[in-house]
Amino acid sequence: MKNFLLTSFNYLLILFICTSNIVQAQNKDYTSFVNPFIGTQNMGHTYPGATTPFGMVQLSPETNQEAMLIDGKYNPATYAYCAGYQYADSTIFGFSHTHMSGTGHSDLGDFLLMPTTGALRLNPGTADQPQSGYHSQFSHQTEEASPGYYAVTLDDYNIKAELTTSDRVGYHRYTFPKSDDAHIILDLISNIYNYEGKTVWTFVRVENDSTVTGYRQTNGWGKTRKVFFAMKFSKPFKSYGHKRYEEVKYNGFYRKFDQEHNFPEMAGEKIRAYFNFDTEEQESIDIKFALSSVSTAGALLNLATEIPHWNFDKTKEEARKKWNTELSKVEVETLTEDQKVTFYTAFYHTMLSPVLYEDVDGQYRGLDQNIYTSEGFTNYTLFSLWDTYRALHPLFNVLHPTRNNDMVKSMLAHQEQSVHNMLPIWSHYANENWCMIGYHAVSVIADAMVKETTDVSPQRALDAAVSTATVTYFDGIGDYIANGYVSADNNSASVSKTLEYAYDDFCISEIAKYAGREGVSSQFHYRSENFKNVFDSVSNYMRPKMQDGTWRTAFDPLDTHGQGFIEGNAWNYGLYVPHNVDEMITMMGGKDHFSSHLDKIFTTPIEERFIEKNEDITRDGIIGNYVHGNEPGHHIPYLYNWTNQPEKTQQRVRMIMDTMYTNERDGLCGNDDAGQMSAWYVFSAIGFYPVLPGSAEYALGSPLVKEATLHFENGNTLHIVAKNQSSKNVYVKKILLNGVEITGPTINHFELMKGGELVFEMSRK
Amino acid sequence: MKNFLLTSFNYLLILFICTSNIVQAQNKDYTSFVNPFIGTQNMGHTYPGATTPFGMVQLSPETNQEAMLIDGKYNPATYAYCAGYQYADSTIFGFSHTHMSGTGHSDLGDFLLMPTTGALRLNPGTADQPQSGYHSQFSHQTEEASPGYYAVTLDDYNIKAELTTSDRVGYHRYTFPKSDDAHIILDLISNIYNYEGKTVWTFVRVENDSTVTGYRQTNGWGKTRKVFFAMKFSKPFKSYGHKRYEEVKYNGFYRKFDQEHNFPEMAGEKIRAYFNFDTEEQESIDIKFALSSVSTAGALLNLATEIPHWNFDKTKEEARKKWNTELSKVEVETLTEDQKVTFYTAFYHTMLSPVLYEDVDGQYRGLDQNIYTSEGFTNYTLFSLWDTYRALHPLFNVLHPTRNNDMVKSMLAHQEQSVHNMLPIWSHYANENWCMIGYHAVSVIADAMVKETTDVSPQRALDAAVSTATVTYFDGIGDYIANGYVSADNNSASVSKTLEYAYDDFCISEIAKYAGREGVSSQFHYRSENFKNVFDSVSNYMRPKMQDGTWRTAFDPLDTHGQGFIEGNAWNYGLYVPHNVDEMITMMGGKDHFSSHLDKIFTTPIEERFIEKNEDITRDGIIGNYVHGNEPGHHIPYLYNWTNQPEKTQQRVRMIMDTMYTNERDGLCGNDDAGQMSAWYVFSAIGFYPVLPGSAEYALGSPLVKEATLHFENGNTLHIVAKNQSSKNVYVKKILLNGVEITGPTINHFELMKGGELVFEMSRK
Repeated sequence: MKNFLLTSFNYLLILFICTSNIVQAQNKDYTSFVNPFIGTQNMGHTYPGATTPFGMVQLSPETNQEAMLIDGKYNPATYAYCAGYQYADSTIFGFSHTHMSGTGHSDLGDFLLMPTTGALRLNPGTADQPQSGYHSQFSHQTEEASPGYYAVTLDDYNIKAELTTSDRVGYHRYTFPKSDDAHIILDLISNIYNYEGKTVWTFVRVENDSTVTGYRQTNGWGKTRKVFFAMKFSKPFKSYGHKRYEEVKYNGFYRKFDQEHNFPEMAGEKIRAYFNFDTEEQESIDIKFALSSVSTAGALLNLATEIPHWNFDKTKEEARKKWNTELSKVEVETLTEDQKVTFYTAFYHTMLSPVLYEDVDGQYRGLDQNIYTSEGFTNYTLFSLWDTYRALHPLFNVLHPTRNNDMVKSMLAHQEQSVHNMLPIWSHYANENWCMIGYHAVSVIADAMVKETTDVSPQRALDAAVSTATVTYFDGIGDYIANGYVSADNNSASVSKTLEYAYDDFCISEIAKYAGREGVSSQFHYRSENFKNVFDSVSNYMRPKMQDGTWRTAFDPLDTHGQGFIEGNAWNYGLYVPHNVDEMITMMGGKDHFSSHLDKIFTTPIEERFIEKNEDITRDGIIGNYVHGNEPGHHIPYLYNWTNQPEKTQQRVRMIMDTMYTNERDGLCGNDDAGQMSAWYVFSAIGFYPVLPGSAEYALGSPLVKEATLHFENGNTLHIVAKNQSSKNVYVKKILLNGVEITGPTINHFELMKGGELVFEMSRK
Repeated sequence: MKNFLLTSFNYLLILFICTSNIVQAQNKDYTSFVNPFIGTQNMGHTYPGATTPFGMVQLSPETNQEAMLIDGKYNPATYAYCAGYQYADSTIFGFSHTHMSGTGHSDLGDFLLMPTTGALRLNPGTADQPQSGYHSQFSHQTEEASPGYYAVTLDDYNIKAELTTSDRVGYHRYTFPKSDDAHIILDLISNIYNYEGKTVWTFVRVENDSTVTGYRQTNGWGKTRKVFFAMKFSKPFKSYGHKRYEEVKYNGFYRKFDQEHNFPEMAGEKIRAYFNFDTEEQESIDIKFALSSVSTAGALLNLATEIPHWNFDKTKEEARKKWNTELSKVEVETLTEDQKVTFYTAFYHTMLSPVLYEDVDGQYRGLDQNIYTSEGFTNYTLFSLWDTYRALHPLFNVLHPTRNNDMVKSMLAHQEQSVHNMLPIWSHYANENWCMIGYHAVSVIADAMVKETTDVSPQRALDAAVSTATVTYFDGIGDYIANGYVSADNNSASVSKTLEYAYDDFCISEIAKYAGREGVSSQFHYRSENFKNVFDSVSNYMRPKMQDGTWRTAFDPLDTHGQGFIEGNAWNYGLYVPHNVDEMITMMGGKDHFSSHLDKIFTTPIEERFIEKNEDITRDGIIGNYVHGNEPGHHIPYLYNWTNQPEKTQQRVRMIMDTMYTNERDGLCGNDDAGQMSAWYVFSAIGFYPVLPGSAEYALGSPLVKEATLHFENGNTLHIVAKNQSSKNVYVKKILLNGVEITGPTINHFELMKGGELVFEMSRK
């Protein structure tokens, strides 16, 4: 926190103006309440670099160059570097253009640039050995980060690095000391989660003395992933070169050339290029670096269209304005300034993915590697759907419905291009990486359909959903269709899959209603009840079942591994029946019994042996056996609403907000998971949560804010007031929406979207 | 020859009809005079498979699977397999879709298909071990080949394989025995000139039960070469699968799937796929296999557009007609039937490259890997220019001027896309492979300009030519510009390069005249005299000169290696001053002295030690020190025209035609070199030859034909008659063009293109 205050004078200044209530909301600078360092320490897996809302470029420093695979074996040390950056580090290896925010697995880190001076070092070196490569020491004292801007001084070279971006173009400014030996290195081997062989091919052209284009193809999480670039330097380089680091087996007639020096064509598997300059004291060299999924021509077009000038500050200000436009959709007043920063940073983190995935002319690379033009929508990629269907897409349906509609259309385009005819599981730069379970794209579509935020054809959406849900070779689906559950014989997460498929089938059943296909709706409604098939009424738990219908023996409902659940156990993951909470509660012994099971979850300490294996969360993310640091339980605190003790929901969600989200570098209790963790916070902080995406109802909670004003795209404004708000007054006595009291556990989406005033009367009891 | 007769009953039949003079020329089937096996034995490097004139697909059998590099070392055994096929072999490994005709280095062999029955063998095996892999024994008795068609029986499986093509789509017909274990293997690792690591990446999708798409990227002669495909089976496969032959370092969440069986997505470095069928006795499975340089979508479009049906015979007949249309442009009568087959096969071989390189919608991959649409031209690739500027492109200017204009435009497009701003040296599937020396694209452009067959802007052409000729880092050009010659200090072929650059500069000088740029014309005319700088008047040879102006010592004018020449020596290559023959002859001691030097070339036996090192030619391709099997001397027999003994030209060219081109499998005396060897024959057979491409004059020779009728695109017809023609009457007494006697050593292009009658009066003396 100290560092953040040190580097945020603007923040304090604008804070003063805000609290004085003089300036109108839309003129306030909400970017000043964003602390991009939250989550950069430990397991938040966020990055501090520069990006625009949902932007294609995420330009951010790399503090690690360790390989994910060493001699074919997984190196757990790399896990912390999903976003390329760990706050505890003091070495920077350069700045690359693509990053995932908060994921628990990773990839990307495309096109690393590193400015240096002195003797040219093309190897990165290792962090533990200063001067062993091109990397540099840095101090957090020199670091600054705000939405769309990042700066740091590279101490080894006395170079100030500043980064900003437009949607598709990263803008670097490197301010050098006087040098006749200044370099900018373009390392095309560098990857996040790197390993020998990850970069498949690289192709670079030095178009003229200040323009370079190229692409690379990588393997990895995205199996056949191509990224193209175009870069322009503000000043011509005086010379350049490159080295190939692979064994060159065949060079053909290229042997005619000195390919390593001033030869404008570079191609190979492992290339590091460099560009040499003379610099005056405090001379800045600017670099505009555009990406494209299509071609270098596309990257050049993006570059010329988005940043036609050499005004770094202009681009930085445009990025800030874009962020402020998004952030000012929700104006909150909180009890403390830390809460305000926590809130706006969470809100910021919900807008880092999915990311834009098309050129300015609408062209993008499809899943079949063909080039498409988005007709009638904007194409997005990076759908971490197992995480984000829960609260992130529902949040978009409240605050960015147009964008969410584009995302729905992007998913349908993905399905059209898929050789499996499947909607995305985890859509990844024209690849499907198959990460995690379920087919939750159907949840996002159903949620958009139910909330009337999409104009896609319900029939088309239904066809895509049914096609996805009937691919028998996918992850136990054949078994699930045949038996009504995923059997435990050959499937380690059989219960998790059965429960999530059943929920997804509820969503398909809902979509079918919109398509007017009652038969299909009934069929998937029937499938949605499959959760019953894995409930063991004797043990009172969801439990792994064998193909022959017997329960798997050696069942430990607290064990998080090998017990039919993935990243969870029967205690927490076993409560995943969002589409039929009442029946689940009845099935599990009624409201009071269920309520006490929830109590046990929050109060029985988790055994240490179940944590140490789980790398996605920190101890801080756990309350008893409730694991907030991971998604399967995100709805659990809200389940008290369906018992006789809804006040326990209120108490627990306030407790979670207070303890698991802070304005600290380690202020996230687990991976932010592409914004899902933060979306949970944003919803909960304003008093409600989408326990059942695919329905128009939100479970009521207990707001953290004193006040919140939501500006909807439909032009309406919802003013949320928490009367008598305090850190102790976590209980809600009464809720009034436009003067009418809300009874029952939920509040309706359409009622909220009409705007007006939602009043929570808070109390200590 | 025996085999050819055995398999060519149609040929004999149609021959009878032709000689009866009943059928009009355009109705004659000239394809029956083509023997695609000529050149398939020894060093001709032709292929017997199916293709259309200048077609994108060359579908032909592979009889070898040996690697070019073994443990990083060149394996000379592979040299014979530039076109994938050697007649002496008795094993076929499959049929692939791209081949070069006659080249002395190679690549391609994309997408090998092999039908088999019985236990699935996915490894190719080795030719010396029958049954060791999927390959099959075959007998030439079952082989048939004609333009656009190839057939063979695969004896190991009793499968009859038939191949035909449209321009962009290969059409396979495999007739099986009864089997419940029939396979069609798609080997994506197979390459001509293969080596470990040549295939960079492969991507395959099984779109449905009978459609497969994909692409692969290869390294090699073309450094970053991508070819896309779409294939359709006439019958659904019952199952399919693939194996990856590389060490898979990272598999991500694909581990969820059984990827090897019926999984529609395949990607990796080394993939062999297979498709399984049940077949009835004599059941044919047809496969249409389309290529594209752009995308799988492009390949699918090509497939649907060109062959929308399942009628193999229709495609075969269309291919035959295309060939007949081209072949009937020249109707010849010869002294023997073998000469006729030799002539039409040579003519056929002149139309196998350059090859079409765009999809049916005009899209193609450019040198920068971006996708372009050809506007106002058809795009071609495979320009083996060091060979083909000599006679092949001049032949196109006579017989296919529209196509040659497209080729000129393709070269200019290449130049626009080149990061070096250079015209092609050896244009190779969106790559420059840099093979051989000179920048002879300027010769092709000058020749088209002088002969008025191109409508490109002379200014644009000049800019491209000058840009090419001034790239100082290219192959001694900096040195050449600075010193007036390429110095021998660092350049092994310094004299060859100096002579060819000087000739090319003459061409640029000519282009500059058309552009009205007198200054540039003078400047390059001055450069065109650089041949004088490497002439040593003491030894009377062109000779390697050092940077300091001294001659390199240890000079052996007969040695073909390390003496300043590439694929030649001072005796033959040293006579390469086509643009100033008179001055060269004066410089070398006058006409008589020169004449006797030419005699010596033809009569002094070459020393064995200079042959064994040269793999491009066979002993048959040599007369004394004259090496017809390679290009640098192709003009030499015609140089007598400029001495007092033009009759020796007549005698020598007839001798060369008689002895070095025969209707035999080994009927080519060296690599056909993308058609240049054959173009020499076609020109010489009709009585003239373009000693100086870039001028409108042809050197006169001695026709081989009795009669020839040339149908020009301008609608004119030239009837060439060799009166008193016989194998002994090789001397030309008199030449009359439309009744006017031609005196002097040359005949003018424009006069010929007017049509009419060109009479050679032949005599024994």
